Amino acid sequence: MPELRRDPIIGRWVIIATERSRRPGGFSLNREPQGTVPCPFCPGNESKTPPEIWAVGQKNRVPNQPGWTTRVVPNKYPALEIEGDLHRSSEDLFAKMDGLGAHEVIVETDDHNRQLEDLDDARAVDVLHAWRDRIVDLKKDKRFEYVLVFKNRGASAGASVAHAHSQLIATPMVPIRVKQEIRGAEEYHEQKGRCIYCDIIQAELDKNERVVEHNDDFVVITPFASRFAFEMWILPRVHATDYDQMPESSYVSLAKILKKALTRLNNVLDMPPYNFIIHTGPLKTNGLAHYHWHIELMPKIVHTAGFEWGAGFYINPTPPELAARYLRDALPDK
Amino acid sequence: MPELRRDPIIGRWVIIATERSRRPGGFSLNREPQGTVPCPFCPGNESKTPPEIWAVGQKNRVPNQPGWTTRVVPNKYPALEIEGDLHRSSEDLFAKMDGLGAHEVIVETDDHNRQLEDLDDARAVDVLHAWRDRIVDLKKDKRFEYVLVFKNRGASAGASVAHAHSQLIATPMVPIRVKQEIRGAEEYHEQKGRCIYCDIIQAELDKNERVVEHNDDFVVITPFASRFAFEMWILPRVHATDYDQMPESSYVSLAKILKKALTRLNNVLDMPPYNFIIHTGPLKTNGLAHYHWHIELMPKIVHTAGFEWGAGFYINPTPPELAARYLRDALPDK
Repeated sequence: MPELRRDPIIGRWVIIATERSRRPGGFSLNREPQGTVPCPFCPGNESKTPPEIWAVGQKNRVPNQPGWTTRVVPNKYPALEIEGDLHRSSEDLFAKMDGLGAHEVIVETDDHNRQLEDLDDARAVDVLHAWRDRIVDLKKDKRFEYVLVFKNRGASAGASVAHAHSQLIATPMVPIRVKQEIRGAEEYHEQKGRCIYCDIIQAELDKNERVVEHNDDFVVITPFASRFAFEMWILPRVHATDYDQMPESSYVSLAKILKKALTRLNNVLDMPPYNFIIHTGPLKTNGLAHYHWHIELMPKIVHTAGFEWGAGFYINPTPPELAARYLRDALPDK
Repeated sequence: MPELRRDPIIGRWVIIATERSRRPGGFSLNREPQGTVPCPFCPGNESKTPPEIWAVGQKNRVPNQPGWTTRVVPNKYPALEIEGDLHRSSEDLFAKMDGLGAHEVIVETDDHNRQLEDLDDARAVDVLHAWRDRIVDLKKDKRFEYVLVFKNRGASAGASVAHAHSQLIATPMVPIRVKQEIRGAEEYHEQKGRCIYCDIIQAELDKNERVVEHNDDFVVITPFASRFAFEMWILPRVHATDYDQMPESSYVSLAKILKKALTRLNNVLDMPPYNFIIHTGPLKTNGLAHYHWHIELMPKIVHTAGFEWGAGFYINPTPPELAARYLRDALPDK
């Protein structure tokens, strides 16, 4: 019998296949060709992107010249644009506003042939710092309510350039998915006086069935109501609302565990396309007792079909307990 | 400047590209091979599916033998299973129940090489009747709260068999997407005393910018806050909550306009993969003043990426006004 499972935070239901569970070999991955030649993100091609906003690299390097190792630039084809005011207009049913926002690309490495998980810890920490620093900077712009950091790898996950990169979009409203989480978490907090994410972490560690890995600062789980096969969440073990407010040591710890999570995924599914996103607190809140930042890592190995779009609930062919077992075994301890 | 548009019913925001809008030629369609040989849905292969539940065809034909033109069978690999009770269990955070439900396949034609839009009107009406009759029948099973009818065409829209077919899933709860629509529509009705869908239809007909087609009974629009390029909605012009309660003449009228909408899509985008879904009233309600059944038709020509998954708002590269123009022109009037 398949199982219907309810996400405890937002109430989304997921159908988990149990009898005909799909194991790693059971997916046919769609590996479409990718990438523009010459690569706009390679050193020497800095003029192919808008001027940089942030970079680390050699001391005394000239901006927009080689010598960087991580570099942030505005997206050349932005989904939202930085210039302008919030013109709201509403003719009856049709509310709209100018597509004001920021859309930036974090080029994660100068090496075209390395992925985020291949970087050494210090370089991976640079990427995590880039996300943090850009959130901190965009927070100063009072037109923005949220910054969503995300990464698409592989064409079927929406990536159009193969060179390792992540992105962020600053928006003039809090995205509905984040609002739903905050609302669900707030209700739980009102009833129980505790953070639901903290309770989930404790329950998962106690149960130890869906824990992929943990270190002192973070835990990686395959969530109970995983939407996608081999979905993972990475959560800070101590309650924290805002990604950008972590102590320095946590970025190092996160870099290590994120790289390992991606390596596990590569080992189990042979470099699948994936998305990950950071869900952190809205820019104009500060340390909510009920909201806990986290990363959601979603392999894109099954096509989302009519039922999912129409119902808003998902069919997941791989039970998260089985996925956790494969992912744990994919990297032996130490 | 791109535009941020708010869906008037559920409040979902969409980013609509305006300056670099993508026209029909600007999409690279993913046409993966599809289909099992021999085709399990072709006449003569009836034994490859579970025994039929519903069929039309030659008088006095023997069930599960050729002679049918439309045929409904249980899905051989069901997402939910029909046998069993609703065992609910909830250990703290982790609520689940048995995956009880029905999952059926509507084989739309006996001809392997015809699509739904190629059928003559009477055969297309048979398909619409199959959806209706199955909803009416499943409604008798008090364990079910909802029947979602949907169609996936093309591998990247989730179809695994090329032979024209649609599906339905009966679920023991109302799907969250339908709940959100009903909730939004109910709020509007409380404030204005009118159905929001009726108001949208009137506003669209008045404005005539996003209307693709209308006949006496139905209207086809590209919705104001379309999530997907060339998304279309088909709505009954007169308020009606339940797909299965339409007068007979409406099924004929719907068959004609649905076939034309699909043909428009084929003409504009050269047989793109798509999903469509029917959003109708929950099984245990009867004629809600605020909820209006409709079809949502979603071409799958752009990969959904991290931002959409993480934010729950969508980036649509083709403004619906532009899409409507192409779709209108794709089939000359009469």
